[in-house]
Amino acid sequence: MSDSVYSVSEIVGSSTDSIDDAIKGAVARASKTLHNLDWFEVSGIRGRIEDNARCHYQVTLKVGFRLDERTATA
Amino acid sequence: MSDSVYSVSEIVGSSTDSIDDAIKGAVARASKTLHNLDWFEVSGIRGRIEDNARCHYQVTLKVGFRLDERTATA
Amino acid sequence: MSDSVYSVSEIVGSSTDSIDDAIKGAVARASKTLHNLDWFEVSGIRGRIEDNARCHYQVTLKVGFRLDERTATA
Amino acid sequence: MSDSVYSVSEIVGSSTDSIDDAIKGAVARASKTLHNLDWFEVSGIRGRIEDNARCHYQVTLKVGFRLDERTATA
Amino acid sequence: MSDSVYSVSEIVGSSTDSIDDAIKGAVARASKTLHNLDWFEVSGIRGRIEDNARCHYQVTLKVGFRLDERTATA
Amino acid sequence: MSDSVYSVSEIVGSSTDSIDDAIKGAVARASKTLHNLDWFEVSGIRGRIEDNARCHYQVTLKVGFRLDERTATA
Amino acid sequence: MSDSVYSVSEIVGSSTDSIDDAIKGAVARASKTLHNLDWFEVSGIRGRIEDNARCHYQVTLKVGFRLDERTATA
Amino acid sequence: MSDSVYSVSEIVGSSTDSIDDAIKGAVARASKTLHNLDWFEVSGIRGRIEDNARCHYQVTLKVGFRLDERTATA
Amino acid sequence: MSDSVYSVSEIVGSSTDSIDDAIKGAVARASKTLHNLDWFEVSGIRGRIEDNARCHYQVTLKVGFRLDERTATA
Amino acid sequence: MSDSVYSVSEIVGSSTDSIDDAIKGAVARASKTLHNLDWFEVSGIRGRIEDNARCHYQVTLKVGFRLDERTATA
Amino acid sequence: MSDSVYSVSEIVGSSTDSIDDAIKGAVARASKTLHNLDWFEVSGIRGRIEDNARCHYQVTLKVGFRLDERTATA
Amino acid sequence: MSDSVYSVSEIVGSSTDSIDDAIKGAVARASKTLHNLDWFEVSGIRGRIEDNARCHYQVTLKVGFRLDERTATA
Repeated sequence: MSDSVYSVSEIVGSSTDSIDDAIKGAVARASKTLHNLDWFEVSGIRGRIEDNARCHYQVTLKVGFRLDERTATA
Repeated sequence: MSDSVYSVSEIVGSSTDSIDDAIKGAVARASKTLHNLDWFEVSGIRGRIEDNARCHYQVTLKVGFRLDERTATA
Repeated sequence: MSDSVYSVSEIVGSSTDSIDDAIKGAVARASKTLHNLDWFEVSGIRGRIEDNARCHYQVTLKVGFRLDERTATA
Repeated sequence: MSDSVYSVSEIVGSSTDSIDDAIKGAVARASKTLHNLDWFEVSGIRGRIEDNARCHYQVTLKVGFRLDERTATA
Repeated sequence: MSDSVYSVSEIVGSSTDSIDDAIKGAVARASKTLHNLDWFEVSGIRGRIEDNARCHYQVTLKVGFRLDERTATA
Repeated sequence: MSDSVYSVSEIVGSSTDSIDDAIKGAVARASKTLHNLDWFEVSGIRGRIEDNARCHYQVTLKVGFRLDERTATA
Repeated sequence: MSDSVYSVSEIVGSSTDSIDDAIKGAVARASKTLHNLDWFEVSGIRGRIEDNARCHYQVTLKVGFRLDERTATA
Repeated sequence: MSDSVYSVSEIVGSSTDSIDDAIKGAVARASKTLHNLDWFEVSGIRGRIEDNARCHYQVTLKVGFRLDERTATA
Repeated sequence: MSDSVYSVSEIVGSSTDSIDDAIKGAVARASKTLHNLDWFEVSGIRGRIEDNARCHYQVTLKVGFRLDERTATA
Repeated sequence: MSDSVYSVSEIVGSSTDSIDDAIKGAVARASKTLHNLDWFEVSGIRGRIEDNARCHYQVTLKVGFRLDERTATA
Repeated sequence: MSDSVYSVSEIVGSSTDSIDDAIKGAVARASKTLHNLDWFEVSGIRGRIEDNARCHYQVTLKVGFRLDERTATA
Repeated sequence: MSDSVYSVSEIVGSSTDSIDDAIKGAVARASKTLHNLDWFEVSGIRGRIEDNARCHYQVTLKVGFRLDERTATA
């Protein structure tokens, strides 16, 4: 672990099943465009209620990833 | 989405199984007496520990519902 | 100001015009069903963005009202 | 402690004597209209100052109560 | 509303006129480069004071937008 | 911008018209007695409700001003 | 209540007896030099422990007072 | 419930499966060395991301336990 | 005051009488097993409500104590 | 330590060198006009970035000082 | 200072030497890909402990930069 | 990184020199009695002011350490 610099992106995953599913979906989506994903932190759990009954989870995450020399976005 | 007004109630669901179960139980209970439930937000996750081992989740939610003209409680 | 007890309700006003409008609409709606409204406090300002451009403000308020002897809801 | 659902109301007690008095007055008032009161949590301590000297405490509480099958308000 | 993933960007709008103007300017600017803008949330209201008198508002917003398959930045 | 020291005062502006008016009134009042006003930050938006309907905004601000050598109050 | 401006000072009262005593002492001290004291808000309760046993309360308050035309300090 | 005193420890459970698993693992580990465990409260949900994809949950809990007369650690 | 290191423990005192009593009881209990107690800070005031009426205060404190060379627990 | 009352002022120190320097400069400036300075607490660390590279630290402090009988400002 | 719009990125700098070094390294890295850097704000100071002794600082910053007409990322 | 459990202790380091020194001193002291120290997080920076001028830093840290099978304290 040298003196690396990390960047943090905030994303929101959603799922009709569970909080865990919403987190995993968000990380999977982030991994398509961001490399060197290193950690995440849940900063909010909310959701929509449909037909007065069904929960649609929306979980807000911060994801951190290591910036290497070629990465163009801080 | 016209200029609606929403009301927010705070409820606590409990479950011996999972956080998701506690949330779903609380929303199901709220839907018995509140109409037009629209969203929820988790504001706390705690629980009791029974027999020094078993977790009994208590999840605090804010639930928002749209007030229509006939609704009597803000 | 004797030893009164107050109750606090949380409501969300919405407006396509301004934050002030969303607040005033929420207080006007609350005054239809709650008496002795005494104060409010803004606890969140958010909104929807429609057609990638127009802001629809949603302002969350806590409103406090004095409970008198006949009031049935704490 | 089965899978109960609780509701949380926010109230403000006031007293010219002490913080403890303001809390007890608020809980006593809540018990007139709410059943199965279970816990409280202090979320703010403020007050008015009268005649540039006397403190009139205003203590904000969240009170939780268990919803049973017949309870009509979430 | 399927299991979408959203991204959140933080921006600061400024205006010498009003808070509402600063918000609208920031959303208008964001809509030039971000698609599917869905919501915003005000996370801070500050400003510069010029000539010991004039307020120059700076309003910090989080804006959320839906990521589609072609979007390259999380 | 050398190694200046700033002082921060907390003030509350009020207005029956708008949040912006309350802010501008507070800054105008502060500028009568404080020099080198540099920035402000809104730390709370509340208000009184009069006659169960009219909002009287109370906006709490922190205002920062540069201390020069002759300034007597930190 | 016209469009007044208030100023807020932060003070810490202390007492070996009780939290209430520390608050009252702080307000009494503030009233010697500040006029038109209007409200207070407790922002922290801490204390020293002496001889491994005795509590010396230190209660931090914000006190608000109305600025009139002649008041020289914002 | 006499005038008991409780102690609070902060622990972090981890799991590659779910948030619930991380909580249950942490409580199970705490119960090996602490007696009279009474409640828990989740104060943070974070995790590592391995191979740019897999979530390893780390859930921070505060656990409270009743101190009896023989307990040696406050 | 040399370059000492302090440790902080979190404890919860309870009392059916008053907040002050709950604090004093918690500090008295901590002083049985911890030496060099130096300060405390109240981080939460809650309680149980018994028989829909009586308050049983639970006050959460952080207590700090100086570690000397012989102290075995950080 | 009798039942003293303390006042708290908020100041911002700045430095191009380090956070520690900004703190020391702010305390040194405060000591010119305030007596009996007793403690400080850092409430924010920010800064300007000049020429897209150089950090100019701005550290916000609360400083507490004991009020004696002759002190004119609470 | 016209009605500019700013964007805020969150980054984490790391250093085995000091907090100041971690901040400067993060800003230096950000300046490679972002133009018009204007301010930063420290939102967290944490670190790894290696070999049970050495601190590896990780300082989280928000950095703000002015968006000009040609900037493609909000 | 299997499904480990970590414990978190809160400590306060002090130094007349710098914030970094206070952190390093606290970690060095903790490492005498705690094994497998893994991370730290700064939760507060305060200090004493001596002779109206000299800063004595007090930095509060949470330190996390991995519990192994033989560790007796959660």
